[in-house]
Amino acid sequence: MITWLDLPTDHPFGIHHLPYGVFSVGGPPRVGVRIGDLVLDAGAVAAVGRDAGLVGDGPDLASAWQTRSLNAFLDLGRPAWTTAREWLTEILTDEVHRAGVEPHLLPLSDVTLHLPIEVADYVDFYASENHASNVGQIFRPDSPALPANWKHLPIGYHGRSGTVVVSGTEVVRPRGQRKAPADPAPSFGPSLRLDIEAELGYVIGGPTELGSSVSVGDAEDHLFGVVLLNDWSARDIQAWEYVPLGPFLGKSFATSISAWVTPLDALRAARVPLPGQTEPPVLPYLAGEATGFDIHLEVDLNGTVVSRPEYAGMYWAPAQMLAHLTVNGASVRSGDLLGSGTVSGPEKGARGSLLELTWNGTEPLTLADGTCRGFLEDGDTVTMKGWAPGPNGARIALGEVSGTIRPAR
Amino acid sequence: MITWLDLPTDHPFGIHHLPYGVFSVGGPPRVGVRIGDLVLDAGAVAAVGRDAGLVGDGPDLASAWQTRSLNAFLDLGRPAWTTAREWLTEILTDEVHRAGVEPHLLPLSDVTLHLPIEVADYVDFYASENHASNVGQIFRPDSPALPANWKHLPIGYHGRSGTVVVSGTEVVRPRGQRKAPADPAPSFGPSLRLDIEAELGYVIGGPTELGSSVSVGDAEDHLFGVVLLNDWSARDIQAWEYVPLGPFLGKSFATSISAWVTPLDALRAARVPLPGQTEPPVLPYLAGEATGFDIHLEVDLNGTVVSRPEYAGMYWAPAQMLAHLTVNGASVRSGDLLGSGTVSGPEKGARGSLLELTWNGTEPLTLADGTCRGFLEDGDTVTMKGWAPGPNGARIALGEVSGTIRPAR
Repeated sequence: MITWLDLPTDHPFGIHHLPYGVFSVGGPPRVGVRIGDLVLDAGAVAAVGRDAGLVGDGPDLASAWQTRSLNAFLDLGRPAWTTAREWLTEILTDEVHRAGVEPHLLPLSDVTLHLPIEVADYVDFYASENHASNVGQIFRPDSPALPANWKHLPIGYHGRSGTVVVSGTEVVRPRGQRKAPADPAPSFGPSLRLDIEAELGYVIGGPTELGSSVSVGDAEDHLFGVVLLNDWSARDIQAWEYVPLGPFLGKSFATSISAWVTPLDALRAARVPLPGQTEPPVLPYLAGEATGFDIHLEVDLNGTVVSRPEYAGMYWAPAQMLAHLTVNGASVRSGDLLGSGTVSGPEKGARGSLLELTWNGTEPLTLADGTCRGFLEDGDTVTMKGWAPGPNGARIALGEVSGTIRPAR
Repeated sequence: MITWLDLPTDHPFGIHHLPYGVFSVGGPPRVGVRIGDLVLDAGAVAAVGRDAGLVGDGPDLASAWQTRSLNAFLDLGRPAWTTAREWLTEILTDEVHRAGVEPHLLPLSDVTLHLPIEVADYVDFYASENHASNVGQIFRPDSPALPANWKHLPIGYHGRSGTVVVSGTEVVRPRGQRKAPADPAPSFGPSLRLDIEAELGYVIGGPTELGSSVSVGDAEDHLFGVVLLNDWSARDIQAWEYVPLGPFLGKSFATSISAWVTPLDALRAARVPLPGQTEPPVLPYLAGEATGFDIHLEVDLNGTVVSRPEYAGMYWAPAQMLAHLTVNGASVRSGDLLGSGTVSGPEKGARGSLLELTWNGTEPLTLADGTCRGFLEDGDTVTMKGWAPGPNGARIALGEVSGTIRPAR
């Protein structure tokens, strides 16, 4: 499969990838598809095809793509996603379409990228055993490292949808209450333990009805694609507030996601078995054909790579997360976002948060410029990247997610 | 202030109330205002005024009201809410408007009521000291009844926006995992401890920017109005899942709210001081002019009133909840919903959940039909009502919230 574009066959945004995003060039935001370092104005091309009678009776992709988020396209469901991907592949590989398509390809550097989805409900999971175990040791030193329920169900909680932002958005250092165990009373001020969490985010499409459930086997009908996600976390605020109802202000000030959503269909070559769920075995509603993904992450802090987490080591699969989320009858909507939870491996250099990398600030990192970090300082820039194996030895690069810390107001 | 409608001056949906909702009569849903047992097609009347040039340069209420949720109206902000209320009061009291308005009044029994808002983020608080203390004793018998942070900050967590439903929607009994401390392993099945939580919900309007905060003093610019809220809860699922990240599937299957949103402006006569926050004093960002409301709730189970919670006893005010929620820079959107948390008083007959009323099922209630309840059975109907003092001895009735339990699927 070779595109008529002048693009190396192993380009990480090549013809095998085709991630979706939302862009603008002065006018209203609309859906785009990235190929190489270009953005295809997908709705405009689909409208040409539709108006010329070339598209037939399929889904109205032109209308779905000429909107300011992916939500209308997500509403169409998996058959339409498949049709769309086949059609995009055809027009970008068959030379006959070249003259019609080329006017709708824009240099990436000329466009502004926006939040790709209107986030409906955002649920963050906790699917890495190493991460959960590390956090347990740090936050609850007198309890078992792993909560008693952890291997029985994918623990998750709802985050704040309205503060999910696109890569590049600056993050204002949050203020809030904190109280260390030895402090006599809580104090108020800018967070002193501002942290990151390197995660994958799964974008959901195809709404379901209240009272119904999505099985593990059907989950991928609703798992549209993947973003990189940085779940910014204020550890001091979180530690004081989270008992008994969970994290709130320690997380709700910002969650960054990449501008590009990689379709699950682009990750076929990256599928890997889960590390294993035999002791204890999972309950039947969580069993079934659930796979993980061989995705390699990289966390960069001011130009120094501080961690290389491996997603393949995650205990719970996204299909299990979705089956669990809906087993009580909760419905899903297009634009729902599921965070994987921090991706941390067993080695120190594969931990996905500064909390773990510096063991709650007690073992600071040294950056390339010679400065040290326990947690984030104002002006720090964190960039997360990721890639997965594609067909024939090529790589699929996930869209990167980046953010810079601004001082508290 | 007397309306030209044939309505007793002490009617609980009289001229001093004017709650907003969304209704339909065959066609698309649109905004309505309740007066007595009639619904005013607010957008239609406003359009007549606008098209006749009677409305002037004010906010375009006709456009905001001819939509399927209150969100566009909420976006307009407090000055527009005040203008709208003054205008509605005028057309319903000045006889000169009677001929123009009457054709747009519909019998309540002829309309279908819908979810009044498109819920953006839903945050549930935990603002009753009696409730938090009761739950602490039941769920954490070996720990202090009240968490250490409870009197320092209004504890809250994000709930599922997509499963907030309007009064009258049936609730399917959720399935899920549960494990009592003595059980060797978790089991799966329909919840055996299905419960209610009697709450108020505050509807937020007027979006704010990421990175900014809303002070206690400014909070009422964003607190549009009040609904009754039933936070259905599966206690067995919740107890097993909630450590360490908070409630998830035990709550996410359904949250019911009343169809009518009572504007905060209708509750002026109901304002009361908070019970007191002197020991410990609150941090400065939570101090200020925060008031509670003298609202009386009633919980009816299959025709038997099982509880009469008093909202006036709540420890934390809604203005404090909003100030806390945003102090870290989290933005709010129109359609955000803040639950007060279960309203429970010090007496047994004023507890707002079956968990507390039956002390986790150990002290069952006897209903008027002679049957007993620890928790809810299939077919049970729960209806919550509420009222507040209005001007001149009249009552303001909150819209009721009702739901019937259907068997697990």
